Amino acid sequence: MDMIQVCIIGSSGHFGYVLDGLREVPEARLVGVAPGSPGETMDKVLAGASRLGAAPRLFDDCLDMLDELRPDVAAVACHFGDHARVAAEVLKRGIHAFVEKPVATTYSDLRMLRDVYAAGDARLAAMFGSRQMPHFRTARQAVREGAVGDIRLIQAQKSYRLGTRDAFYRQRSSYGGTIPWVGSHAIDWVRWIGGETFESVLAMHSTRDNKDHGELETTALCHFRMTNEVFASVSLDYLRPPTAPSHGDDRIRIAGTEGVLEVRDGRVLLMNGREPGIRELPLLPKEDLFPAFIRQLDEEDGRVSAEDAFAVTEACLKARQSADEGRQVLF
Amino acid sequence: MDMIQVCIIGSSGHFGYVLDGLREVPEARLVGVAPGSPGETMDKVLAGASRLGAAPRLFDDCLDMLDELRPDVAAVACHFGDHARVAAEVLKRGIHAFVEKPVATTYSDLRMLRDVYAAGDARLAAMFGSRQMPHFRTARQAVREGAVGDIRLIQAQKSYRLGTRDAFYRQRSSYGGTIPWVGSHAIDWVRWIGGETFESVLAMHSTRDNKDHGELETTALCHFRMTNEVFASVSLDYLRPPTAPSHGDDRIRIAGTEGVLEVRDGRVLLMNGREPGIRELPLLPKEDLFPAFIRQLDEEDGRVSAEDAFAVTEACLKARQSADEGRQVLF
Repeated sequence: MDMIQVCIIGSSGHFGYVLDGLREVPEARLVGVAPGSPGETMDKVLAGASRLGAAPRLFDDCLDMLDELRPDVAAVACHFGDHARVAAEVLKRGIHAFVEKPVATTYSDLRMLRDVYAAGDARLAAMFGSRQMPHFRTARQAVREGAVGDIRLIQAQKSYRLGTRDAFYRQRSSYGGTIPWVGSHAIDWVRWIGGETFESVLAMHSTRDNKDHGELETTALCHFRMTNEVFASVSLDYLRPPTAPSHGDDRIRIAGTEGVLEVRDGRVLLMNGREPGIRELPLLPKEDLFPAFIRQLDEEDGRVSAEDAFAVTEACLKARQSADEGRQVLF
Repeated sequence: MDMIQVCIIGSSGHFGYVLDGLREVPEARLVGVAPGSPGETMDKVLAGASRLGAAPRLFDDCLDMLDELRPDVAAVACHFGDHARVAAEVLKRGIHAFVEKPVATTYSDLRMLRDVYAAGDARLAAMFGSRQMPHFRTARQAVREGAVGDIRLIQAQKSYRLGTRDAFYRQRSSYGGTIPWVGSHAIDWVRWIGGETFESVLAMHSTRDNKDHGELETTALCHFRMTNEVFASVSLDYLRPPTAPSHGDDRIRIAGTEGVLEVRDGRVLLMNGREPGIRELPLLPKEDLFPAFIRQLDEEDGRVSAEDAFAVTEACLKARQSADEGRQVLF
């Protein structure tokens, strides 16, 4: 593989996935960084790069950077409302885009990004960070291998500490909403592990008690109907107290015709008819997303991940629309 | 307190609550038993009575029994579709009714029962069995005392083994549906612990993979909107494998402005901003339902429990209607 030139745009999302991943991909080199949204500073990214021994050039304007450096890959992690616009600029230049999820925060931006993607050959993947985690990888593998039989019912949960969030979280236009931002992970699990397709959603969200976070929704509950009469709930909140033992409490429970599998506290617990009681499954190793994206640039089916990103983003936007309008939305 | 004469009608529901409770209420005496639905035999009830040292009279017809024995209290635990009709006959005779939940399986039966109840002075309570359990009593007390601040989000779960159920479970007319039968517990918790009122529900249910159980729904998922923008999901299934460590897996998670409380595996786990980490709460003792019902016969506010029974039954029927019709139903 030739040397791969990488740029990072923005410092608001999980740019750390790229910095961490670069350690594992010696053929990739961070050559430039630039903000992607008004008011972003790149200090944290530059500091992280420096710890890697990298010395990327800092640009004021990400488009100037793309045009001048012509990198192979650009990571997009600016304000969430700008993901689609910036990612489209990346793709239009034939540059592969590794984009923070959700990849768009409006239907029109999602359509635009899909069109730009379809018109070119560049790859796109979303930063579904939990897909790299041992417990979610293990859960998916077990379920796909039939550990619970046919899936019938799914409950997913994301619970975060709120703390004090950056100003851009306080407006829908820049934040996108709690369902797209927090929920995209859990909505991805439902589809990625469950393997069914969304048919309808009813969702609700509330900004109550958001401690002066403007339009940020503190709670949301989504109820999906999937193909094959599989039902899935997705519960989202920022109510985890500051004294909680960890930042987040990610869970999924998958009940099927032959058993029940759960992810909780980073563990995978399986109960099925084959052995008595509840078994804790040994975990697959972590697989970092960014190196996987780099590797798949050479693979035939490397464009699958973009479909995942678009489908999950669309599901988030439909759930958000349902919550805004108080009615069920069909897919 | 004078001697209290008790009858049991039916052998399909939790008549055991009455038999267990009689041990604690020396002033109550089981005087008669009779079937309440076609095909019921009273063998199990008579065997249980005999173990108590009681020798109730066996009647073929429960109305004959009520008219002849004129008991103070009758427990109703026949086929679920007959609860309302039989309970109404009890109440019409001025006899207090301790009724298996749901107290009705159709809107018209519920209206009829409410009218009969309102026209008389007899008391009515539903067999909300989990209300007597230490973990649910403890959870409610903690939440009501402010352990999680203002409640914002609730997730409840009932998961059962299916096994092989009696024939009457296989028809909607006699069984009533999984949302009323299994769900009534969890829907009760949402209201009883959460303290809010139902505003709307969207629910789904499926009979898939019910192992020849006719119309019995194997899975259901309900999504309630409550007053004060509190959202609640209720997940129900019969998917617990035969090798599971217990018959049921009851859970509730209540997230509020100051913390999160969970009931799981019979334990109550609380995390709030006052202490680091997760604390397991010491449990209140079990409080049997039937003795509590007998005691409240002398209390001024003893009619509150009937309102609980009617409200939860109505919520179950609205959720079932939503699932049948595929649309949100308002309260």
